[in-house]
Amino acid sequence: MGTASLPRPSKIVCVGRNYVAHAAELGNEVPAEPLLFLKPPSALIQVGEPIVLPPAAGRVDYEGEIGVLMGRRASHVSEADALAFVEGIGPVNDVTARELQRKDIQWSRAKGFDTFCPMGEMVPVLDVDMDRLSVVTRVNGQERQRGSLSQMVFSIPFLISYVSRIMTLEPGDLLATGTPEGVGPLAHGDVVEVELPGLATLTNPVILGPER
Amino acid sequence: MGTASLPRPSKIVCVGRNYVAHAAELGNEVPAEPLLFLKPPSALIQVGEPIVLPPAAGRVDYEGEIGVLMGRRASHVSEADALAFVEGIGPVNDVTARELQRKDIQWSRAKGFDTFCPMGEMVPVLDVDMDRLSVVTRVNGQERQRGSLSQMVFSIPFLISYVSRIMTLEPGDLLATGTPEGVGPLAHGDVVEVELPGLATLTNPVILGPER
Repeated sequence: MGTASLPRPSKIVCVGRNYVAHAAELGNEVPAEPLLFLKPPSALIQVGEPIVLPPAAGRVDYEGEIGVLMGRRASHVSEADALAFVEGIGPVNDVTARELQRKDIQWSRAKGFDTFCPMGEMVPVLDVDMDRLSVVTRVNGQERQRGSLSQMVFSIPFLISYVSRIMTLEPGDLLATGTPEGVGPLAHGDVVEVELPGLATLTNPVILGPER
Repeated sequence: MGTASLPRPSKIVCVGRNYVAHAAELGNEVPAEPLLFLKPPSALIQVGEPIVLPPAAGRVDYEGEIGVLMGRRASHVSEADALAFVEGIGPVNDVTARELQRKDIQWSRAKGFDTFCPMGEMVPVLDVDMDRLSVVTRVNGQERQRGSLSQMVFSIPFLISYVSRIMTLEPGDLLATGTPEGVGPLAHGDVVEVELPGLATLTNPVILGPER
């Protein structure tokens, strides 16, 4: 599935603090259950489209993540069955206005601005070695984040099962599975890449939005 | 627009603590800016469909609200222009698992279970006296909540403008504008009504979901 057929999810479900070292770098503990939050579909952009920094938002960070695109409706599915409901795997950038995240009680604004959810090519799950998934983030060619499945607190099948017991996952819905350590700020003129090695690379330029 | 043509929003944007007395009843202060959160579209149900209480979720509350259905794409719209982007006004119930809301850092789980967003008939905005809007919630015929626009911290045009400067509002998107004081728990067998007097009434039975 190429970016020309980028789906329009009815929801984007994200997981916070799913890597031990990332939770620690922001001074947080690893949660006992997955920490879920939602990003609005209006935040989605494709490969090559610019991430627009809102002028008044303060620091805006990249968060490279492994994205899971749902292929079948999933409600109350078991962990053992979960991967059968997946369409594809690809890179996602959970762009976050860090200061607003700390200030607001909820993260919906900090993670919900237009262009704050770059989503790359979703590789059909049958072509993916699910045991060897990893994610690398680079800014202007310099590596900033590197994480792999083995560092995740909650596995992808566990997360799908967990979410599906709360909210029905629809075909085209996107699950972002958390970011490893190494988050940091973006600036006008940067180019940020989120690569799932062997699968796909999501590259987006960064620009400062207009005052208005 | 009847319920037969209930739209499928790409997002549901909600406002917390938008009535002074409700913020106080939960021990919270009124925020300086609107407190935004998202509910997933998978939570939507129509008039007459049951609200399903998850067996392990603890206390689940009704929250009657004035809902705003967007009719045109709205990005960075002014408060003065905001109502021109609205399609309809109708009742919404922001059903909330109160104990999970307090326990979780984010409210996405507590407010995101399937059936936790009953949405009633949306009356065309041209037929609505926007200065006289009010909302009444009843459980088993007994009034529990009553609120009117004059008690809102942030007005509907202000909220539309504010949200549109963060995330583009798409046609069919739903804005839930906050709940007045008087929230309380629902139990199996209850019938909950959210009425916007003169406009529409949203009635839903409540049932306990299966253990699974």
